[in-house]
Amino acid sequence: MAQYDTASLANLIDHFASLPGIGSKTAQRLAFHILDLPLEEAKQFADAILEAKTKIHTCKVCQNLTDLEVCSICTNKDRDEGIICVVENPRDVLAFERTREFKGLYHVLHGVISPMDGVGPDQIKIKELLARVGDGKVHEVIMATNPTVEGEATAMYVSKLLNPLGVKVTRLAYGIPVGADLQYADETTLGRALSGRNVI
Amino acid sequence: MAQYDTASLANLIDHFASLPGIGSKTAQRLAFHILDLPLEEAKQFADAILEAKTKIHTCKVCQNLTDLEVCSICTNKDRDEGIICVVENPRDVLAFERTREFKGLYHVLHGVISPMDGVGPDQIKIKELLARVGDGKVHEVIMATNPTVEGEATAMYVSKLLNPLGVKVTRLAYGIPVGADLQYADETTLGRALSGRNVI
Repeated sequence: MAQYDTASLANLIDHFASLPGIGSKTAQRLAFHILDLPLEEAKQFADAILEAKTKIHTCKVCQNLTDLEVCSICTNKDRDEGIICVVENPRDVLAFERTREFKGLYHVLHGVISPMDGVGPDQIKIKELLARVGDGKVHEVIMATNPTVEGEATAMYVSKLLNPLGVKVTRLAYGIPVGADLQYADETTLGRALSGRNVI
Repeated sequence: MAQYDTASLANLIDHFASLPGIGSKTAQRLAFHILDLPLEEAKQFADAILEAKTKIHTCKVCQNLTDLEVCSICTNKDRDEGIICVVENPRDVLAFERTREFKGLYHVLHGVISPMDGVGPDQIKIKELLARVGDGKVHEVIMATNPTVEGEATAMYVSKLLNPLGVKVTRLAYGIPVGADLQYADETTLGRALSGRNVI
């Protein structure tokens, strides 16, 4: 952007380009869009960023993001307190909520154990999960971390901590994604789908 | 986003989704990215938006965007004051500057004449262009509006106003884009490429 003598425009473009999945051309388009907005709308955008950063914090029970002290899922009396679905991040909660299949509660770890990245068990919300399970109301914990090396290791680690507490620990089923084509499935997934086959 | 009780998060996602080319999934990803940023960086992002809106205005000569009173292209003594390239918007100036071929000055119309959208000649910067050409230093005006119906009409309209001032008005060449495949060229472009053929 050296051709432009607008340091503030170059700065705005750089900020957009720093977002994930936004390249330099898109960043330029977005920055020009901001310039075309009425001042009032641009202010609202800037405020939305600041407000989100300052107002949103983690629910003190499930660690999910919320504006409240305890999130609306944890305070919802219609949900089953006996089942906790453990996920890596708040986006995963959204994904489960979209299925409308799960009526239990969540626990957000905010990461996975990954020694390569210097993330140990203490850096993610495992202590908070153990405290919740310790009170005896919970009878099942579903480990819904991602099927990656780190996600698997975290699921194994947490389940070893939970088993002595007398709670059933389960893991999401592996298999062929619905609507996928068998010929494109990788060997590991297909192998898992085979070993996890059910009677119909 | 009804599942989420974070009005401020939903608000931020909506703001991102209102940007051109950003769908709801991308908006969600960007909003979560903002939440993951340190507060200081999020503040800088918000400030960049506000600063761009308040600091950037149009150059009083060429109407391009700048932080200064007269932009660095207009004040650059190495550039040829005799040629003005007329473009629709500031992005087009960037595109020309990237070619490193053009050493003249620019004039940004900030739109094209489009009766359908209620944009008449007075809503774009035509008056300012006539004032610049009127002083006698300019010997050529290149009409570089887009090859659309409105761009063409605007080029024709402006050239009719400029001709009486004794200035040469030219239009960008039409033809096959460099690197394109002839079989995919549309008939109009191919026809123009044929009628505008040059001796080699």
